[in-house]
Amino acid sequence: MTKNPKFKITPIGGLGEIGKNMTLFERNGEGFLIDCGIMFPANDMHGVDYIIPDYRWLEERDDIRLHGVAFTHGHEDHIGAAQHVIKSFPGIPLFATPLTAGLLQVKLKNARLLKSAKIHTFNGGDTIQIGPFTLHSFHVCHSIPDCVGYGIETPYGMIVHTGDYKFDNTPVHGRKTDYARLAGFAQRGVVLLMADSTNADKSGWTQSEAVIDGALDKVFRGAKGRIMVATFASLVSRVQQVVNAARNHKRKVCITGYTMSEYAKIARKLGYLDVDDDMLVSVGQALALPPHKVVFMVTGSQGEPSAVLGKLAAGRHRQLDVRKGDTIILSSHPIPGNEEMVYRTINRLIERGADVIYDSIEAVHVSGHACQEEMRLMLNLTQPRHLMPVHGEVRHLHLHAKLAADNGVAAENIIRVENGATVELNARGVTVGERQPGGYVFVDGSGVGDVGRAVIRDREILAQDGFVLVSVNVDHRSGKLIGEPRIVSRGFVYLKDAEDFLDQIRDNITEVVNRSRRLNGKRKNLVEESLGKLIYNETKRRPMIFSIVNEV
Amino acid sequence: MTKNPKFKITPIGGLGEIGKNMTLFERNGEGFLIDCGIMFPANDMHGVDYIIPDYRWLEERDDIRLHGVAFTHGHEDHIGAAQHVIKSFPGIPLFATPLTAGLLQVKLKNARLLKSAKIHTFNGGDTIQIGPFTLHSFHVCHSIPDCVGYGIETPYGMIVHTGDYKFDNTPVHGRKTDYARLAGFAQRGVVLLMADSTNADKSGWTQSEAVIDGALDKVFRGAKGRIMVATFASLVSRVQQVVNAARNHKRKVCITGYTMSEYAKIARKLGYLDVDDDMLVSVGQALALPPHKVVFMVTGSQGEPSAVLGKLAAGRHRQLDVRKGDTIILSSHPIPGNEEMVYRTINRLIERGADVIYDSIEAVHVSGHACQEEMRLMLNLTQPRHLMPVHGEVRHLHLHAKLAADNGVAAENIIRVENGATVELNARGVTVGERQPGGYVFVDGSGVGDVGRAVIRDREILAQDGFVLVSVNVDHRSGKLIGEPRIVSRGFVYLKDAEDFLDQIRDNITEVVNRSRRLNGKRKNLVEESLGKLIYNETKRRPMIFSIVNEV
Repeated sequence: MTKNPKFKITPIGGLGEIGKNMTLFERNGEGFLIDCGIMFPANDMHGVDYIIPDYRWLEERDDIRLHGVAFTHGHEDHIGAAQHVIKSFPGIPLFATPLTAGLLQVKLKNARLLKSAKIHTFNGGDTIQIGPFTLHSFHVCHSIPDCVGYGIETPYGMIVHTGDYKFDNTPVHGRKTDYARLAGFAQRGVVLLMADSTNADKSGWTQSEAVIDGALDKVFRGAKGRIMVATFASLVSRVQQVVNAARNHKRKVCITGYTMSEYAKIARKLGYLDVDDDMLVSVGQALALPPHKVVFMVTGSQGEPSAVLGKLAAGRHRQLDVRKGDTIILSSHPIPGNEEMVYRTINRLIERGADVIYDSIEAVHVSGHACQEEMRLMLNLTQPRHLMPVHGEVRHLHLHAKLAADNGVAAENIIRVENGATVELNARGVTVGERQPGGYVFVDGSGVGDVGRAVIRDREILAQDGFVLVSVNVDHRSGKLIGEPRIVSRGFVYLKDAEDFLDQIRDNITEVVNRSRRLNGKRKNLVEESLGKLIYNETKRRPMIFSIVNEV
Repeated sequence: MTKNPKFKITPIGGLGEIGKNMTLFERNGEGFLIDCGIMFPANDMHGVDYIIPDYRWLEERDDIRLHGVAFTHGHEDHIGAAQHVIKSFPGIPLFATPLTAGLLQVKLKNARLLKSAKIHTFNGGDTIQIGPFTLHSFHVCHSIPDCVGYGIETPYGMIVHTGDYKFDNTPVHGRKTDYARLAGFAQRGVVLLMADSTNADKSGWTQSEAVIDGALDKVFRGAKGRIMVATFASLVSRVQQVVNAARNHKRKVCITGYTMSEYAKIARKLGYLDVDDDMLVSVGQALALPPHKVVFMVTGSQGEPSAVLGKLAAGRHRQLDVRKGDTIILSSHPIPGNEEMVYRTINRLIERGADVIYDSIEAVHVSGHACQEEMRLMLNLTQPRHLMPVHGEVRHLHLHAKLAADNGVAAENIIRVENGATVELNARGVTVGERQPGGYVFVDGSGVGDVGRAVIRDREILAQDGFVLVSVNVDHRSGKLIGEPRIVSRGFVYLKDAEDFLDQIRDNITEVVNRSRRLNGKRKNLVEESLGKLIYNETKRRPMIFSIVNEV
């Protein structure tokens, strides 16, 4: 066996945020990962496209051999960073259930990485071997088909990683969360449960996806014109529910948007989306049909301006528009931070004449995550010795820990760590070991990690009050100003309407430059200081101030 | 009587947004306003402090005599622009109930406008005369005491303006919404109802403020250490509820923050806050008490970084800190757009060791606005011929209109207009007249209206990708570059770490300047175009690009 008996677990992302899930499991120089997802930027992470976990320390470790990445399901917060991980660890094998593998293929094809990727497909319930590690996958319900969690064998008992789950007893695709497998793990002894915390502040049970069928049926029955349903491209089971409603109400279905079309295509091919060829129509065909004969599936349920719904709201879609009589369903719930954009989109769609149905009006969406009673059920089924709450903001992890303590898990066995902290398992139990950097890596344009906190902070200041830059030419002998100062400014005030103020600025600079001609080196600072004071006194604002002093 | 019999109503703000409420009522050259509030900026209104209604067209109208502003209640979205309105219409009388008048006084004192303000105080239920207009005020429940709506006499029947309301049968301060008055209006004939639409997407009834008492009692009973309760400074009845809970649990109360202290002082003086002197302690006294003997009332329940709770979360408060064992209650609900900041604040407080209770965990907050069943009750009590949904985003106004139609108001009598649209009332009914500009006026620093859409758009671009500015000196005879190009950049990438890229930029500029020496006028454009292309190709980003070409 091994010389170093410790089994180590390092959550790289997903603790303290919803997104960028990634966990490293290792023992004696061998390791594997579960998931590698992305996270969407907060409103004040200006200009950032998305965020990936900070695993740069893992790239630099030459004492570990990574045997693969095991995925739990195909949502972006679990698979979205696959392209980055493949680039960082060339040739690393990927393990996934068929639908997750299909969605990974779409993603890697778009990144031109499909050919070099090694994807191993297995079915939920299969036991898989990743290097020296044995993982027993088990099916869980969530809001996409083909989700799994993993029971990981260790010398000290099983680690159970739930993935994203809920206990849906009437799921769209029929398959329930695998109660038997979870109970079986308990019989073998679960040393550590790593469980989804997303809804830890919600009491009771999450509603079944089945309630959506009823809500869709009601809305479809009432709709006289066209119907448009917005949801995530990856919510394959929701697409199925819309297809079912459309079938019942004799409407054709038009799936719009590149990603949603690609995902639907692969889901159909793999048997996760049941829709006959003659029910699907192109946008062109759909527009030729009577309004009450068609449903459009669109992206943009989070208010993203560049997705289909955002373009429809702004009247900027090339083929489609929103008309009086249209019924638009948002089969989604705003991710915290997106509320403003989602409601703005809804308001604009209503202004264009649509009737908009969202989840507070009808049950056209339910959460994919376990609420408090399900979290208790998971604890009672698996009977873990230790619990590590994962997948949630700090408030969710905190409440999950409280719930577990109320439910009988010993307080000292509840492990609340931050991203990057290594948790060590040995015969005596669990200890928290060293800490790796557990932060964010910003992806912006083609840059990965080149935009850091300092640049974001500058963007924030520029967003608040803009900047003012003055450029002056001075005679290198006399130190006197030559010509007029030139002023460049954006985001401050509309200077073209403020001629008096511009004159004040020019006078101020001229005065400072001419007065300070003996202080060559400091002149730049003096100009900026004086200009900053003038601007603050006049406007109570603090734009960024720059000066360029050309000695000629 | 008058020659022009038309009675005109112009909503200046509050339609299509929650905030900046203001409505003009006029007849034959005489007029008055109801409310003048502010609105808080959306996340993409960079650098804006707050927004006031655009009534500049009213300032320019010399055909109308304004006789006063009647206020419905003391929340910022109804009184917050009072200082601007007083400056625009010097000497305009203000009409308000005692608590609203008290809060106005605090506000105007801070703006050094109190001495010139004419405030007329009346009690809810009183009939007031504003110039030639007769207004019957009536008490309504909301989340601050002393709220009223108005029944306005017109030759064509009553106009009923609800203000913000709910039908709370067990309000904190005992006084119910005035069912009798509302029914009385119906007997006289209500030609137009203008009613709060905020919760039009919520079914059923809003819970009574009384449920908060039970929730606070439960949390107070369980808290072993200090308690901090965050809410709006103006939520005077919530402060009363916290005081009551503190009294029951033998804790002293420490009210922190300038605005909350000022508001509590005036509310006590006027009899709207019942708390004995010996229950109130200063921060210094509170810190000397055992932890289980004190409650702090703090501001910052919307996640504002500059309020007390935000400072506590960041560890930047001068006197207070958050410790393990503290219980923090957010007696509030995030205003759409604030969710991210509120949850971030909660997460940080938990990281500092506090237990944080918010409205999804216990009923420590309820809405102050009517839900759908109450909206139906208002329609049934007042039996209006016409309805104008007010106070809400477009989605709320739309749903309120639908609800009214379902409830029997004739579709053609439901008036859905935008801010600035004038609605005319005459013997035949209601017509929609001309439209004034109904937009936003941004207040930023000391500037009112000098930051417009163009500046905000520039701030957005700067926030996304920053800017790059190059300054070059060229010989005015040869057109050749003199010295090196100088580069100023912020918010783009951290250029100090990108020496190669800087060299590339310099080479590019040198090449363009020297190549284009015969195209004097166009050289600036050529430099910017070439630099923009280089930057996009290398980084896939589009910072703002500027150049300064100095001919020397």
